Amino acid sequence: MKVSVAFLGGVGDIGMNFYVYETENSAFIVDCGVKFAGGTEPGIDLIIPDFSYLAHIKHKLQCVLITHGHEDHGGAVPFLLQEYPHLPIVADRYTMGLVCRKLKEYAISPEKIYASPMENIVIGDFTVNFIPISHSVHGTNVLYIEAVDGFTALHMSDYKIDFAPITSEPFPLSQIAAIGKKGLSCLFADSTSCTSQGFTQGELYAAKGLEEVFQKADGRIFFTAFSSNAERLQTVFDLAEKYGRAVITEGSSITRNIEHARAMGRLKINDKNIAKRKSINILPDHKICVIATGSQGEKESVLSKISQNDYSTFTLHKNDTVIFSSRVIPGNERSVISIMNRVAKAGGTCVTVDDKNIHVSGHPSAGDAAMLIKLTCPNYLVPIHGEYIHLNKHKEIAVKDCLMDESQVIISSSGEKLIFTDGVFTDREEVPWGKRFVDTKGNFILTKEELKLRKRMASEGAVFICAFIDLIQGVMTSAPVTASAGFEMDTHKVGEFSHYLLNESQNAVFERFSHEGWQEVLTKFTKRYFKKTTGRRPIITVTVQEMQ
Amino acid sequence: MKVSVAFLGGVGDIGMNFYVYETENSAFIVDCGVKFAGGTEPGIDLIIPDFSYLAHIKHKLQCVLITHGHEDHGGAVPFLLQEYPHLPIVADRYTMGLVCRKLKEYAISPEKIYASPMENIVIGDFTVNFIPISHSVHGTNVLYIEAVDGFTALHMSDYKIDFAPITSEPFPLSQIAAIGKKGLSCLFADSTSCTSQGFTQGELYAAKGLEEVFQKADGRIFFTAFSSNAERLQTVFDLAEKYGRAVITEGSSITRNIEHARAMGRLKINDKNIAKRKSINILPDHKICVIATGSQGEKESVLSKISQNDYSTFTLHKNDTVIFSSRVIPGNERSVISIMNRVAKAGGTCVTVDDKNIHVSGHPSAGDAAMLIKLTCPNYLVPIHGEYIHLNKHKEIAVKDCLMDESQVIISSSGEKLIFTDGVFTDREEVPWGKRFVDTKGNFILTKEELKLRKRMASEGAVFICAFIDLIQGVMTSAPVTASAGFEMDTHKVGEFSHYLLNESQNAVFERFSHEGWQEVLTKFTKRYFKKTTGRRPIITVTVQEMQ
Repeated sequence: MKVSVAFLGGVGDIGMNFYVYETENSAFIVDCGVKFAGGTEPGIDLIIPDFSYLAHIKHKLQCVLITHGHEDHGGAVPFLLQEYPHLPIVADRYTMGLVCRKLKEYAISPEKIYASPMENIVIGDFTVNFIPISHSVHGTNVLYIEAVDGFTALHMSDYKIDFAPITSEPFPLSQIAAIGKKGLSCLFADSTSCTSQGFTQGELYAAKGLEEVFQKADGRIFFTAFSSNAERLQTVFDLAEKYGRAVITEGSSITRNIEHARAMGRLKINDKNIAKRKSINILPDHKICVIATGSQGEKESVLSKISQNDYSTFTLHKNDTVIFSSRVIPGNERSVISIMNRVAKAGGTCVTVDDKNIHVSGHPSAGDAAMLIKLTCPNYLVPIHGEYIHLNKHKEIAVKDCLMDESQVIISSSGEKLIFTDGVFTDREEVPWGKRFVDTKGNFILTKEELKLRKRMASEGAVFICAFIDLIQGVMTSAPVTASAGFEMDTHKVGEFSHYLLNESQNAVFERFSHEGWQEVLTKFTKRYFKKTTGRRPIITVTVQEMQ
Repeated sequence: MKVSVAFLGGVGDIGMNFYVYETENSAFIVDCGVKFAGGTEPGIDLIIPDFSYLAHIKHKLQCVLITHGHEDHGGAVPFLLQEYPHLPIVADRYTMGLVCRKLKEYAISPEKIYASPMENIVIGDFTVNFIPISHSVHGTNVLYIEAVDGFTALHMSDYKIDFAPITSEPFPLSQIAAIGKKGLSCLFADSTSCTSQGFTQGELYAAKGLEEVFQKADGRIFFTAFSSNAERLQTVFDLAEKYGRAVITEGSSITRNIEHARAMGRLKINDKNIAKRKSINILPDHKICVIATGSQGEKESVLSKISQNDYSTFTLHKNDTVIFSSRVIPGNERSVISIMNRVAKAGGTCVTVDDKNIHVSGHPSAGDAAMLIKLTCPNYLVPIHGEYIHLNKHKEIAVKDCLMDESQVIISSSGEKLIFTDGVFTDREEVPWGKRFVDTKGNFILTKEELKLRKRMASEGAVFICAFIDLIQGVMTSAPVTASAGFEMDTHKVGEFSHYLLNESQNAVFERFSHEGWQEVLTKFTKRYFKKTTGRRPIITVTVQEMQ
């Protein structure tokens, strides 16, 4: 029997996790995530996978499993359900709550299947078990997948090895060891932090570092971290109580995540420790702890606004301590540094992971990755969830530190499907995949080509031409109206350009009696004109107005 | 007597260094640098200072001094000389060569004054001495400035404390100590690396790390660093010779810098160790070392192109080692990581500062900054060359580690002028300053507002309207021609929008008999239409075509 696993995102790229497990008779998706757009995609917020591969397996596709509630694993579910509205979502209660909150915004009520820990979920030829595990959001699971032919897979998307977390699940050592003992066909495992040496520290390590900051701070404390990290927030609420600071939370994503975590019993807060907004300006600075959004320097975040003096509740004070309890995702450095500079300018102090141990990763480092391999002794390792630098490092760990054979480690990439025949890796095939760019404001989903056009317009400008043509005579009746955006054309230049078009068209030989002929030739002239006069390649739009 | 120092760039921001020293009778500029644009300024390559302050002091402005040849110190000289063509440039021979090479591209022949080490240069009320110092480019100087009233300043723009550099100037310990001993009014000093603990390592440290990489590499070596760092290149040429690798240099900026350094006698290369391009494909991989551009992941760089399989001379091989011997400037992370991923995908290995000690900073760390303060015992310290996080850290070092009084450390910012009366800091004043954005391709210099418009166009799109108006009757003669760019409007939508404009204008009350009236009202309608239908704020251009 053939079992295949297709990667439609998440392999060779961080974010946009999307995996499809498949036999001849049945298929299911594991995770359906987004990637956040960087500052270089104008107007774009999210990048989502191209789902077109699913059309080929529509008849046997049974459900989508979500391992945990991070956006890079569940954020594209609304877009998936817009195309496949009847596809059931399988997730644990915590994650389901996070996914459904997002779906509500899109007015989608999905079919839900709740996964309980270690309960067999039969999906056609497969049986799947959700195994709760430590990561940086509650409700994280890894999946143990058995196919009817005996092929077994352990799908370890995001996880960390933390034996003594504060409120989340400890690493399920005995279960994972038992899976290894039974004999594992293939381990699919998180590569994100494989380039970090040693072992990822446990959550308590960050708690200790944070306590040192609380001990020292004499003004207000502003705290930011990934909003979904309720375990970290538990530490902050506990420290605030211990050091006599009232807490106020600012920013919708943090507030919503706190509500969810409390409702699910994963965050314990003493109500009397929460400050009312109106009382916040009465309290002395050293009695205040503000939990706010902005750990990645997001433009719309609370911290970003406060730092720009654009937030009604707070302005910066001289002795403020701003704690960035998270790593900066590559690409966000400038935005975070901007906030830090504004804090510094106001006389405050920023504390980051570079200064103090106030953050730990949610992903396995090189040592953890090696431990997992030794624990599970898989026939094959497929590094997932990483860019190529991470995947290659993961392979190096497997081969050099764990003595796996090179042939046992499969470096793949999004757009590929690995085929296992009777448990043996036999082939790889290309599958359609790609990125789509979501402009949530305008509700557009752009292709790569359309995005390129946007970018070109920004740097090269746009030119519009409205030409007045007598199609019967095949002549322009007057000089065309022209306008440009994105670069500066004065009245003289506009007139010159317009007359250039008029003159050129009189001399050129082309199909003068159709819209298309005029559009084509005027586009060509315009291209030539701008290349010559400014070296630019603007986006050109020609409208032909028929005159009699 | 009053001596003032104005900051028109470089204080509160890294890059675009521009300082003006001034008395009632005379003034001179120190440095005139650019800042490189990040990926978020469409079509923009360089950011340069606004020179408008100079108009106020034109009558007494005598020259511009360039401390060293880095772009953030001398890169804006062409733009300055376009406005002030007769302003002499004062620099040492090495730096003058670099600046004039750039000026040649702009067809500018400047008046040159060569500064020799420790020679008195009289500039009106000032006497200036150039003091050669260690940094990451040859020909770096700091300036000792004496005003006639006894005010003395040590202008330590970029420097590092390296007592045993390989080919550049060792730190001039005795000269700096002598200045301190004489009594220094004000120290203006580099803050770039003040957030790094301890002491900046010397160049030999990087050489040692690089040798380890050369010892281990069994395939080709690709090496990249800042092109101007000829001392680092000396190390690579020496190592290549020692380990039997022929060197080929690729990329115009590296090639030009090597030529300059050789011509100035600051880079010694054994000619027989340089490979001819045609022989490069005959040599075995372990006999090749390629020095290439691309340390910051620049799109047009050689390494970027090789990694994309878009470079005729080389394609990536499985055992290639790519050495990034430089830090990544914040904002360039994604570009560098992209190259690293492509190398990893091809099976090669990248070595960065995170893996090995193959780079040292050209700037003083916290320990060096403290040493400089103790050495010079200034009455005042003004931290320069840094963002606020760096300036504040510099202040902290001065106050906490060197026991300067808070009042002795002046945190300023670009757009400010510090005034010293008879050697005492008496006042600060605002001066006009700003950033201008250079689109070198289109030869435009944009203001901040114009740049904002470009950015808005990219994310919000542009709409053009050509309306046909009978101005005598005050009516539209037909539905206007409309077009959009940056978002997708199908034919149906275009028609709907066009008729919306026609209908609205029939019902609205406005000045129907002028171009301006129509332009204004159609802009308003368009704004409203797009806000309602798409939530967007496109750039709107309305052209009124008069019909009879």
